[in-house]
Amino acid sequence: MKKNLGVNILLDVYGVLLTDRQRATLELYYGEDLSLGEISEETGITRQGVMNCIHKSEKKLFEFETRLGLIRKFRELSEDIDKLEGLIIQSEMTNKAILADIDDLIVEIKEKI
Amino acid sequence: MKKNLGVNILLDVYGVLLTDRQRATLELYYGEDLSLGEISEETGITRQGVMNCIHKSEKKLFEFETRLGLIRKFRELSEDIDKLEGLIIQSEMTNKAILADIDDLIVEIKEKI
Repeated sequence: MKKNLGVNILLDVYGVLLTDRQRATLELYYGEDLSLGEISEETGITRQGVMNCIHKSEKKLFEFETRLGLIRKFRELSEDIDKLEGLIIQSEMTNKAILADIDDLIVEIKEKI
Repeated sequence: MKKNLGVNILLDVYGVLLTDRQRATLELYYGEDLSLGEISEETGITRQGVMNCIHKSEKKLFEFETRLGLIRKFRELSEDIDKLEGLIIQSEMTNKAILADIDDLIVEIKEKI
């Protein structure tokens, strides 16, 4: 079984929609980088049970992205905000006070997306 | 049973996470504004069955917002973009070509959030 590292970002966005057990298992596997055997020892679930749980949870995460597309949407928004920032720099705005407010707001927006 | 109109926006954002039947029932009830009796006639499900389906689906929608908070997030982002737009207007930018590009980009961003 090969670890799909794209799952980390999916887990970050959609982990809240999994059950506690599914989220915990994926976090051990992807976040803590434990092996199936180590997770089995830690949780008392069989190795096969751990593997099934990981497969099922991953499938749910990919399904959430297919349906909601949040990662794609936030990536697009993030690119748009970068472009906007570039244009504002290019404009060589002379009002420095407003420019500082704009910069602060862009930092805030970036934290949200 | 009183219709909760806030459900419309939840349905718009999270409807894709419901089953087809749940989504279709809520769309008849909130989107088409049909009564329980009318939905029962249209779908062949008992009036009680329709009511249960609506309750269960609504509960799921509220749960999605509690967990993912997308409506709150997008509302906040939308307010931030409005503020940004206000600041750009205040700045009285002299480079009209860049201002036009910024305006276009802001329109694009607003369509995404």
